[in-house]
Amino acid sequence: MAEPRNAFYAQSGGVTAVINASAAGVIEAAREHREHIDTVYAGANGILGALHEELIDTSAMSDADVAALKHTPAGVFGSCRYKLKGFDKNLAEYERLIEVFKAFDIGYFFYNGGGDSADTCLKISQLGERMGYPIRAVHVPKTMDNDLPLTDTCPGFGSVAKYTAVSIAEASLDIASMARSSTKVFILEVMGRHAGWTAAAGGLAARHEGDGPQILLFPEVAFDPERFLARVRETVEKVGWCTIVASEGITNPDGTLFAEAGGTDAFGHKQLGGVAARLADLVRSELGYKHHYAVADYLMRSARHIASGTDLAQSYAVGRAAVEKAVTGSSGIMVSIERESDSPYRWSIGEAPLEDVANNERMMPREFISEDGFHITEACRRYMLPLIQGEAYPDYADGLPQYFRFRPTLAEPRTGRRFEAA
Amino acid sequence: MAEPRNAFYAQSGGVTAVINASAAGVIEAAREHREHIDTVYAGANGILGALHEELIDTSAMSDADVAALKHTPAGVFGSCRYKLKGFDKNLAEYERLIEVFKAFDIGYFFYNGGGDSADTCLKISQLGERMGYPIRAVHVPKTMDNDLPLTDTCPGFGSVAKYTAVSIAEASLDIASMARSSTKVFILEVMGRHAGWTAAAGGLAARHEGDGPQILLFPEVAFDPERFLARVRETVEKVGWCTIVASEGITNPDGTLFAEAGGTDAFGHKQLGGVAARLADLVRSELGYKHHYAVADYLMRSARHIASGTDLAQSYAVGRAAVEKAVTGSSGIMVSIERESDSPYRWSIGEAPLEDVANNERMMPREFISEDGFHITEACRRYMLPLIQGEAYPDYADGLPQYFRFRPTLAEPRTGRRFEAA
Repeated sequence: MAEPRNAFYAQSGGVTAVINASAAGVIEAAREHREHIDTVYAGANGILGALHEELIDTSAMSDADVAALKHTPAGVFGSCRYKLKGFDKNLAEYERLIEVFKAFDIGYFFYNGGGDSADTCLKISQLGERMGYPIRAVHVPKTMDNDLPLTDTCPGFGSVAKYTAVSIAEASLDIASMARSSTKVFILEVMGRHAGWTAAAGGLAARHEGDGPQILLFPEVAFDPERFLARVRETVEKVGWCTIVASEGITNPDGTLFAEAGGTDAFGHKQLGGVAARLADLVRSELGYKHHYAVADYLMRSARHIASGTDLAQSYAVGRAAVEKAVTGSSGIMVSIERESDSPYRWSIGEAPLEDVANNERMMPREFISEDGFHITEACRRYMLPLIQGEAYPDYADGLPQYFRFRPTLAEPRTGRRFEAA
Repeated sequence: MAEPRNAFYAQSGGVTAVINASAAGVIEAAREHREHIDTVYAGANGILGALHEELIDTSAMSDADVAALKHTPAGVFGSCRYKLKGFDKNLAEYERLIEVFKAFDIGYFFYNGGGDSADTCLKISQLGERMGYPIRAVHVPKTMDNDLPLTDTCPGFGSVAKYTAVSIAEASLDIASMARSSTKVFILEVMGRHAGWTAAAGGLAARHEGDGPQILLFPEVAFDPERFLARVRETVEKVGWCTIVASEGITNPDGTLFAEAGGTDAFGHKQLGGVAARLADLVRSELGYKHHYAVADYLMRSARHIASGTDLAQSYAVGRAAVEKAVTGSSGIMVSIERESDSPYRWSIGEAPLEDVANNERMMPREFISEDGFHITEACRRYMLPLIQGEAYPDYADGLPQYFRFRPTLAEPRTGRRFEAA
């Protein structure tokens, strides 16, 4: 039998409340497969850790440390927004990766991220045929945006969905209390660049006649100010108040963004923001209602205190499965969640080829959006409700969650060469 | 012994995650004192319910219904922003109140609110000497702003403090994960009109060297852009990132508000908002760091899912105590919380004369703010940490909190006269 080799694991893109649970899954499964994997090195700040030869030696972590990852939000190893270019565009980067991987005898590559990261993982899986350095690369799915294809859901999304549904349920009760003499319209702005999954999750809070939110605004439905204002007025006249969950990515009929904060991130995506404030202005100037708005932003994706039990279990499971698949020979795949039934929700682990995953965003299906474009359908509810089940509370000490305080042990560099990522 | 009389209870001003627990305290205590109090009528939408003769008959609520109030945020009876004018300014209002109180044989008045509401409660307590309608009026303190004087803390604040500390702790982990290649500065805007209590609560999350938030901005400290930007740069250069909790009410050195959303509420207070967005602009234009911001707004005061156990216990206790004090003859007072020791935190119920409470805001003491004005001191931490102890989770069903769905039973009007509040 072949000697065990080492593994490289990294976190990529926007972090979530439960991505560290996937890390725990990878590390714990690797420790159970010592015949294949010796040490798991985690990249400090994602793939940058490999390029900069900043590798965190996870063998210095006790089993209790690794278990603590399951209840700690964000990325303890550091994440990054950095996308590898094509082989022809920046060969030096790939040469550098191989140099570092060789120095650390890396035979397994686990990349924990979303669509852009799947593309990086795909390129790594091709290092053998393209660059003569065979390596098994498996993608561990993670994105609060729920926009990866070929998986029932994306680890990280269920917790964001739960946060959103709980938050707008609570804010709706607040508005209902005050509407007679004060605020009548409340807008919650949620993250979600192109797909309306997170806004849709807000709709789960509306379970009975008269519940908020009464209006959801999705990027998938062009924003029409006239129809929006008419619906707000109708709702206030009927219910006395109106709560709204608006995706940051809603667009004008011509496809331009309704609100732009200006600037772009490292992937060339426009940085968004300001939707709630602009909607509030519209409500005030056109309808004259007193309003308030909240912007959830990173609070929603880091809200480990209200994480979904289902999401946590799936995040951990995809980490474990990535190792199990890699040690039995798989590469160039993403681990996926497969739904077996809606109610009771049953799921199992599957896989999908990275060629079909990378750079392929999954929008909300049209049948998940109500005909008028302002809410979710029963089909969406059936899909989404299982994902927010269970309250995976962290432990508390002195009134605050006991999140893991990680002091990483960096491996001694071996290449004797510095490299600066572009 | 005198015949029992009825009680009027109402919720006033901005609601909180735990004000309904005070309602439960009032109703449960009244049910234990049937020799003094027959029926508790709750005002629909605060004092407006009395003026409009919209009285909710709480005797129609089962004991289980009343208990359910303890885990339901916002004001189930409806709250209002409506301040009674002076006796000389709007006599008709007082005459109307007496008309309704007489019709319903109201002998006890319990008003659950903040500083403005304490003023209303004081005026009601004077109905005997001023208008010949003696009534025992006791104020049940409630305000997320923590700005009532003569009480150790205000029910509602502990939960907001816990929400703020937990949220910024989580967001800080997120920023720390991403700072190498992405967002370096994060700003959380919190409510709090004149006093910095809620921003101060964010400081509880910073327990160890390097923890966020590194900067707190209080209304009590004039905002100096130069010093702020210098501190942000210093922090990013040292730690790699910087998180900030900013009160919506921060002011320029000339005393004007740093950001104004325009408009005023029924009490004549300016409606605030936009601080985080403006701070973010400043950081981008002057320092060039990538940033994000969140606006907590009503999410923070309705966040029953992360309510403080201490706060819940105190909210319930002040409701009970109001009834116990009133039936033994007290009037014109506010129930208060008295601190007996910091650690372990021990508190008891006290009282304060409403003359000294009404319209008297308690600012943060200077010794709670660090010398540089950007953080809290150990004295503040000693004061505030007890208030966020305990996680008073609501029950969940199907992934969402089981908040009480109240269908109020309105008492048949008895005055035969309609009245419209101004």
